[in-house]
Amino acid sequence: MPSWLEGLDRRARLRAKAGLTRRLRPRSATEDVVDLAGNDYLGLSRHPAVVAAAAEALTGYGLGATGSRLVRGSTDAHHALEDTLADWLGTGRTLVYSSGYLANLGAVRALVRPRSLLVSDAHNHASLIDGCKISGAETRVTPHLDVDAVEAALAGAPGRPAVVVTESVFSVDGDLAPLAELHDVARRYGALLLVDDAHALGVLGPAGAGAVAGAGLAGEPDVVVTATLSKALGGAGGVVAGPTELVRHLVDTGRTFIYDTAPPPAVVAGVLAAAGLARAGDALRAELADRAGTVTRRLGAAGLAVSAPAAGVVSVTAPGPETAVAWAADCRDRGVAVGCFRPPSTPDTRSRLRLTINVGIDRADFDRALDVIVECAP
Amino acid sequence: MPSWLEGLDRRARLRAKAGLTRRLRPRSATEDVVDLAGNDYLGLSRHPAVVAAAAEALTGYGLGATGSRLVRGSTDAHHALEDTLADWLGTGRTLVYSSGYLANLGAVRALVRPRSLLVSDAHNHASLIDGCKISGAETRVTPHLDVDAVEAALAGAPGRPAVVVTESVFSVDGDLAPLAELHDVARRYGALLLVDDAHALGVLGPAGAGAVAGAGLAGEPDVVVTATLSKALGGAGGVVAGPTELVRHLVDTGRTFIYDTAPPPAVVAGVLAAAGLARAGDALRAELADRAGTVTRRLGAAGLAVSAPAAGVVSVTAPGPETAVAWAADCRDRGVAVGCFRPPSTPDTRSRLRLTINVGIDRADFDRALDVIVECAP
Repeated sequence: MPSWLEGLDRRARLRAKAGLTRRLRPRSATEDVVDLAGNDYLGLSRHPAVVAAAAEALTGYGLGATGSRLVRGSTDAHHALEDTLADWLGTGRTLVYSSGYLANLGAVRALVRPRSLLVSDAHNHASLIDGCKISGAETRVTPHLDVDAVEAALAGAPGRPAVVVTESVFSVDGDLAPLAELHDVARRYGALLLVDDAHALGVLGPAGAGAVAGAGLAGEPDVVVTATLSKALGGAGGVVAGPTELVRHLVDTGRTFIYDTAPPPAVVAGVLAAAGLARAGDALRAELADRAGTVTRRLGAAGLAVSAPAAGVVSVTAPGPETAVAWAADCRDRGVAVGCFRPPSTPDTRSRLRLTINVGIDRADFDRALDVIVECAP
Repeated sequence: MPSWLEGLDRRARLRAKAGLTRRLRPRSATEDVVDLAGNDYLGLSRHPAVVAAAAEALTGYGLGATGSRLVRGSTDAHHALEDTLADWLGTGRTLVYSSGYLANLGAVRALVRPRSLLVSDAHNHASLIDGCKISGAETRVTPHLDVDAVEAALAGAPGRPAVVVTESVFSVDGDLAPLAELHDVARRYGALLLVDDAHALGVLGPAGAGAVAGAGLAGEPDVVVTATLSKALGGAGGVVAGPTELVRHLVDTGRTFIYDTAPPPAVVAGVLAAAGLARAGDALRAELADRAGTVTRRLGAAGLAVSAPAAGVVSVTAPGPETAVAWAADCRDRGVAVGCFRPPSTPDTRSRLRLTINVGIDRADFDRALDVIVECAP
């Protein structure tokens, strides 16, 4: 075996010893499992109108976009989705990417100027961290949700352009950033606020327009929003939403936009249908909030360390990585899929189950799934 | 207007003055245009079997994968595609990504060790350049296709782990890297060879297995291949193909894999169908080679500066950026879509039309399109 593969093998054995090996487990289209692991918060990935819209575009355009947006891939479907998202989110313009990861890389990079300082929450998603890294700008990581630390970082860089970078609903623990306070501080220091609203779009805010809109910040000229189209909108891809000048800048200069094949028209058309359903989905959101409360009460009553979810993400602490894996496996054996997060996928050293609310699941199945989680607890 | 937007606006005006503004132009599903701009080399994006496979998976799984591969998104379709690609490309294992961009970021990063040197061709794609950048490793850029310069770079870093990074068929000019020579040099110095085979997969090599296979390098333990699923395979996404140990390493540690929503099952299933057609597509490849030769002869005879294509990408030099834009616009007005590449999307200062061969187009329409390009030439 060549030495580089021996090196990889050695590291794999070390991870195995620490209980950190990851396994890809295929699922079939017909598996009989209650999903408390995915991000299909509103159950729209299987909604008949979403599937029908995607199928129609698939027939009309074919499968792939066949090129980058600028060279060949910009279809009517892409433009219709971007217009709809801009109207919904209340921003000047939006730009769709083939993944949320690429949207975040593009957004952070576009906001950086010479001498910029990035102030980044310690629990931020890997794509935001990578965005900071690839931008080349100095990055100060502040403790999770710590507005005072953000202010101190900004105060310590007078006269420098700065961007405060945060998620709204954090992906592992499901807690919500203090967006209004962060914006107050950012504005006081002339900084921009970049918010990844991936887990809040469709779930929080007026008509589900997200946590940024919920905090009254929609359309503010110093706020930029990113989000995924793969969670409450049931599809795939990402979006950057902000002032028209920013989107024009991304179209002209953004590498992860210009040099990437456009997302497939069928996916984009399905997401457009989902956006309409999500916007009109106050009843879905009420059901989601009710279920989230039920999770906290039911698991809390059973003595489990469960978070109080701000949206559709609930965290349940496990004693350690192996216990977490065994707990999740026992649940799966009994027909319940849950997320299992261990270091380094957790922002701290704690392993946990991550439960997500999918209102597309029958309520009785959902309630039974909570019983299973409690019964399998270590 | 806030000062950051004023700054963006000022830069937009400078780009406009230099003729470098980019415009997104929507196309409809029913547009009547001959496509010499996209990357649908074998015409598979609209193949009935591809569309049918995608439609079936759409009905079965719903639209989105609803989560990352490790948490929720790993379907039977993903595993079937990865097994098929590994068999086709002759590598130990493959891993599918939601875009080729993310596959390249993941691959470069995974190959870097402490003190690594990356030796990167000057014409490499933005995603490879960004992969080098985000890896943090020292990167030496060598002149385009210059094997001696690669050797000199490796000779200048004795004892250090090194990776030679190249495309096979380059995306703008369509020329082919000397893969066998690069591999000889890399092996002599104990370096790895990373090849982005995006424009060759399905087009070159035995059974269309790509330029790496065509150079006799399939399955070599010091060669790693990346590719897109959005070009000859007519879909979307990317893939990393290499030794089993590498793919296991990517599953356990690769950020752009772990923290990204999986590509939609429908897209993956469509690409799987396309891979079968491409593999059996020797007749399609013969037609593609014939058309590529026709482009060079026809445009060359008209006195245009046209490249000799190694695969399905042909470059035609234009006098300048504005002329290139006007030329492409005239072609479009006459029903022919061509790519228009200007700095900074070109590896040098030349602007050009980029023509791509799509064998799904009726041959008579294709031949007429070449007449239009000649008649519209500046």
